[in-house]
Amino acid sequence: MAFRIVKLSPIMARMMSTNATKVGFIGLGQMGNRMATNLMNKGYKLNVYDISAEACDAMKAKGAEVYKTTQELAKNSEFVVTMLPNNDIVKNTYEDMIKDGVNKNTMFVDSSTVDPTVSQYVQKIVKSAGASFVDAPVSGGVMGAQNATLTFMVGSTPEEFEKVKDFLGGMGKKITHCGTYGMGEAAKICNNMMLAISMIGTAETMNLAIRLGLDPKVFNEIINVSTGRTWASEVNNPVPGLSPGTPPSNDYKGGFSTALITKDLGLAASVATGSNSPILLGGLAHSVYRLLCTHDLGNKDFSVVYDFIKNKTEKK
Amino acid sequence: MAFRIVKLSPIMARMMSTNATKVGFIGLGQMGNRMATNLMNKGYKLNVYDISAEACDAMKAKGAEVYKTTQELAKNSEFVVTMLPNNDIVKNTYEDMIKDGVNKNTMFVDSSTVDPTVSQYVQKIVKSAGASFVDAPVSGGVMGAQNATLTFMVGSTPEEFEKVKDFLGGMGKKITHCGTYGMGEAAKICNNMMLAISMIGTAETMNLAIRLGLDPKVFNEIINVSTGRTWASEVNNPVPGLSPGTPPSNDYKGGFSTALITKDLGLAASVATGSNSPILLGGLAHSVYRLLCTHDLGNKDFSVVYDFIKNKTEKK
Amino acid sequence: MAFRIVKLSPIMARMMSTNATKVGFIGLGQMGNRMATNLMNKGYKLNVYDISAEACDAMKAKGAEVYKTTQELAKNSEFVVTMLPNNDIVKNTYEDMIKDGVNKNTMFVDSSTVDPTVSQYVQKIVKSAGASFVDAPVSGGVMGAQNATLTFMVGSTPEEFEKVKDFLGGMGKKITHCGTYGMGEAAKICNNMMLAISMIGTAETMNLAIRLGLDPKVFNEIINVSTGRTWASEVNNPVPGLSPGTPPSNDYKGGFSTALITKDLGLAASVATGSNSPILLGGLAHSVYRLLCTHDLGNKDFSVVYDFIKNKTEKK
Amino acid sequence: MAFRIVKLSPIMARMMSTNATKVGFIGLGQMGNRMATNLMNKGYKLNVYDISAEACDAMKAKGAEVYKTTQELAKNSEFVVTMLPNNDIVKNTYEDMIKDGVNKNTMFVDSSTVDPTVSQYVQKIVKSAGASFVDAPVSGGVMGAQNATLTFMVGSTPEEFEKVKDFLGGMGKKITHCGTYGMGEAAKICNNMMLAISMIGTAETMNLAIRLGLDPKVFNEIINVSTGRTWASEVNNPVPGLSPGTPPSNDYKGGFSTALITKDLGLAASVATGSNSPILLGGLAHSVYRLLCTHDLGNKDFSVVYDFIKNKTEKK
Repeated sequence: MAFRIVKLSPIMARMMSTNATKVGFIGLGQMGNRMATNLMNKGYKLNVYDISAEACDAMKAKGAEVYKTTQELAKNSEFVVTMLPNNDIVKNTYEDMIKDGVNKNTMFVDSSTVDPTVSQYVQKIVKSAGASFVDAPVSGGVMGAQNATLTFMVGSTPEEFEKVKDFLGGMGKKITHCGTYGMGEAAKICNNMMLAISMIGTAETMNLAIRLGLDPKVFNEIINVSTGRTWASEVNNPVPGLSPGTPPSNDYKGGFSTALITKDLGLAASVATGSNSPILLGGLAHSVYRLLCTHDLGNKDFSVVYDFIKNKTEKK
Repeated sequence: MAFRIVKLSPIMARMMSTNATKVGFIGLGQMGNRMATNLMNKGYKLNVYDISAEACDAMKAKGAEVYKTTQELAKNSEFVVTMLPNNDIVKNTYEDMIKDGVNKNTMFVDSSTVDPTVSQYVQKIVKSAGASFVDAPVSGGVMGAQNATLTFMVGSTPEEFEKVKDFLGGMGKKITHCGTYGMGEAAKICNNMMLAISMIGTAETMNLAIRLGLDPKVFNEIINVSTGRTWASEVNNPVPGLSPGTPPSNDYKGGFSTALITKDLGLAASVATGSNSPILLGGLAHSVYRLLCTHDLGNKDFSVVYDFIKNKTEKK
Repeated sequence: MAFRIVKLSPIMARMMSTNATKVGFIGLGQMGNRMATNLMNKGYKLNVYDISAEACDAMKAKGAEVYKTTQELAKNSEFVVTMLPNNDIVKNTYEDMIKDGVNKNTMFVDSSTVDPTVSQYVQKIVKSAGASFVDAPVSGGVMGAQNATLTFMVGSTPEEFEKVKDFLGGMGKKITHCGTYGMGEAAKICNNMMLAISMIGTAETMNLAIRLGLDPKVFNEIINVSTGRTWASEVNNPVPGLSPGTPPSNDYKGGFSTALITKDLGLAASVATGSNSPILLGGLAHSVYRLLCTHDLGNKDFSVVYDFIKNKTEKK
Repeated sequence: MAFRIVKLSPIMARMMSTNATKVGFIGLGQMGNRMATNLMNKGYKLNVYDISAEACDAMKAKGAEVYKTTQELAKNSEFVVTMLPNNDIVKNTYEDMIKDGVNKNTMFVDSSTVDPTVSQYVQKIVKSAGASFVDAPVSGGVMGAQNATLTFMVGSTPEEFEKVKDFLGGMGKKITHCGTYGMGEAAKICNNMMLAISMIGTAETMNLAIRLGLDPKVFNEIINVSTGRTWASEVNNPVPGLSPGTPPSNDYKGGFSTALITKDLGLAASVATGSNSPILLGGLAHSVYRLLCTHDLGNKDFSVVYDFIKNKTEKK
């Protein structure tokens, strides 16, 4: 009897895997649709929801099942991932989704970037309803979502972390346990506040160095083996040409947008206000990035701050 | 005939080496006396000058020759190293030292931290007098001076850099050519401005993270493999206990003093004003460190800024 | 028949005035109890509510009627004034108070300092329930509350403003119409952000002037007739002795506390984040005042920032 | 005999007044030429010097005598006024002018804006040469110079102040004694630092108020009778239209240029560094104005900071 090796198309593969784990995905924007696609490519069966019919259709074409309500979606999913724009939408989405009860076994994962107190509130109501919730915001941007190389920062119990680790590994490559509920969000917000400070600081330091007559390439080599080194100077130096292949070397296109880091700095400002913590440089960084937004730079990589502050004219 | 192996004392060794290169050293403070001692240990013959008789005596006891005037010292030295506290003293010392002429072959090396324009002025007058000058400020602090592990940032021609490289290697382990005259100073000042920004930023980020409930050790591990990493977070984390063996873990003793980084930030402010360059975070860092000085923290390691800004009371 | 002039005690007067306008007052803290007392002294009949039984008892002793629920209080009052600590308490109090309906003629006045969007939300739900709401935060502090010299900043329609103007005049002396709902809060928050900037700026300017050798009294006279003048320099100069009879001349006791201006700056930060408005100096002022709080200065007048930043030691 | 009333032209008047006090004026720029002209109109005989032949010619045409050297000019003048651009030029000009001796009776007045230590140095060398020196910087700008309505801030002994008071009254209307040598400069620099803080603070406060929905005119009226009032809000409000007849209402033309306040902030930064005084807001204001300079706004009135930071797009 002849034996034929059949190479199934990905869509066929998913349809045939009737035993595949069912994952609900809510929020199919720039990040969400890529993350959901990676899960499908890993063999999960995807149930999706978005307020945009277009976004849903695109996922349907790839083999996902589209749901009309989040309640229905949740009831038919073992994992539910939410990837949503802000505090209020996350809060409202969960209140609405669980109002008629949830499956005890469903694990809810919020990958949105929100205030840790929102995560803690949502965890509480999901727990009360009988299921589990962890916060797991990401870093790595659209490229990380595309290539499944995101970093996940997880707030959960150790047991819950074990349960979601491999699952999240389908969308990223570094999965970190940051502590209890909300601590994934806290870690992300704090890291990004420091990142914004580093970037602006590196931008103004590079500008000053150049104004004083230093060759930017030479100075960058020096700073990168000295105490002034930061991720910004080493990996994404804001002076065009110093980090080839990065946004600063490509007219500040792509990368991590000024608008998004401004949003994260807003969350940092909010939690710092809430805990009465002084953020002298972090608060200033927030205003500087808001200033860039008012100057129409919201869509550029956040390293564009170098272009904004650098002296345009020759030194007298 | 019996053969006896004689182990010469260092002092004897120096005295016997009549052909040894003669080095003049001006400024025998905390840094200078250690640097001069290392040169002696490498076999150089040391001529020294300081306004403190005590500092001179201490070097004399180690085998150095003490001079009454810098002019005499310079005339009897192939290298002259100056390690002095500020712009005016450097300027006045050189004007005075060369007023009656210099040996054409003497190489003057200023390792003080001063305004690059001071270095450029001194280079000009030394050149006019017929000799050579390079600026070569250091980083690495008193421990680096002690152990001959300083970093030297050199401003000179490439030829002059070749001439001083091995010589400076007697006092340090990383000798970097930063560009033309003054660029050693420029590189040091710019690096240290970024360092101050990183340190304050890391301090307020760590404080915020802790206030939000993150475990400082866990968060520090996360930030050090993320985009928020800096030298401050990786090597000298300002939260006591995170970087064992460093000043923050030893009551902020030793290390790089708040008073010294405040001085460097003053130089950064001055050259930024001179070149009309905005230093939004660097200028704020300067004020923050001045504030620490007014709160009697000038003698502590500059990471003490964490202790200064951290919330003393529990979060409500 | 003899005619006797009877001087009624205030309590008797109130009890006898059966036709007196009934006012509900919710929140009997430092500010609220003084404001309520002034209203009683003006002849209004007071219905009061507070979570503190002690605060209620004190008002009862002065002749007020104590209510167990805000719903009951509201139903028996023509005006209801709320004076509460923060956004969430204001929101929850109103949601709870009106849940079973309100009298159409009741005018609700919120004198708390909160986010304008909270006022706008509360106005909407009060309106839906059929009654009227205006926001009317105050400035003038405890002394202004005591002496009925508060300034009220009112957000309302022009008609509503006419209705509350005289009533508020019973507790203050300047009643300002700032615009529609929320604009009273917006005006207060913005004014206080500028005030904080002025105070810190004046403090550091006075310190610098003194360090340069200027006589503080002479310099203050100059600045007060020059372009650098501010309310802080003219009325409440932070240098002890320059504004006799004010907190800075009395060990920074009394006045407008650091803790309260920090709270107002938190509201400013929040609305600035919400509207993506850069507040370069305002944001820094917020961090500076949080720093003062961590240094145990929360209970001092906010001019204490001068004492915090002034150079403690002599200039070298 | 007939009597004819002769109306002399100003030039004739000056030429005829052979007994007129002779005044040397060095530095005939935008400010200097107007100040010198006012002195001529008051009856003084003017001796002038400038490196620009054109500037000298213009004054010659008005009746002044032009000198080739400052030494000659000083020897033929009872008062010498200098109005020069920066520290170094002031220092060099005085060193050069007095090197061959001075008349004991000449009173030197420096109206440049420079570091107080420069004034103190110049006073010392002028005193050593046998004559007198006072610092007397001005505020009021080109219009004040034109209309002789400048404010003079004088650093001198009380006796010297009496000697220059009326003389300066020929160029200004408010003559203030600020203390000993250098204190005129110190007062001016400190006042202008506070002014810059007020202006930026007012600009961001007005922007925030408008973003929150307040009517700018209504809010400005409120702030001007409240604790947030400053010279900037009252006299030169940066929002176009609020202070009619001022630069903000005329496309930010005229007034006090961004370039000049940036220069003054540079002097404030320098003296604050020299005295180790923290200037948290003042230092930030300096960076903000440098940023405006890099954005080509140096020639606009410094209130243009409002236009720079205001949100360009509608609030979402």
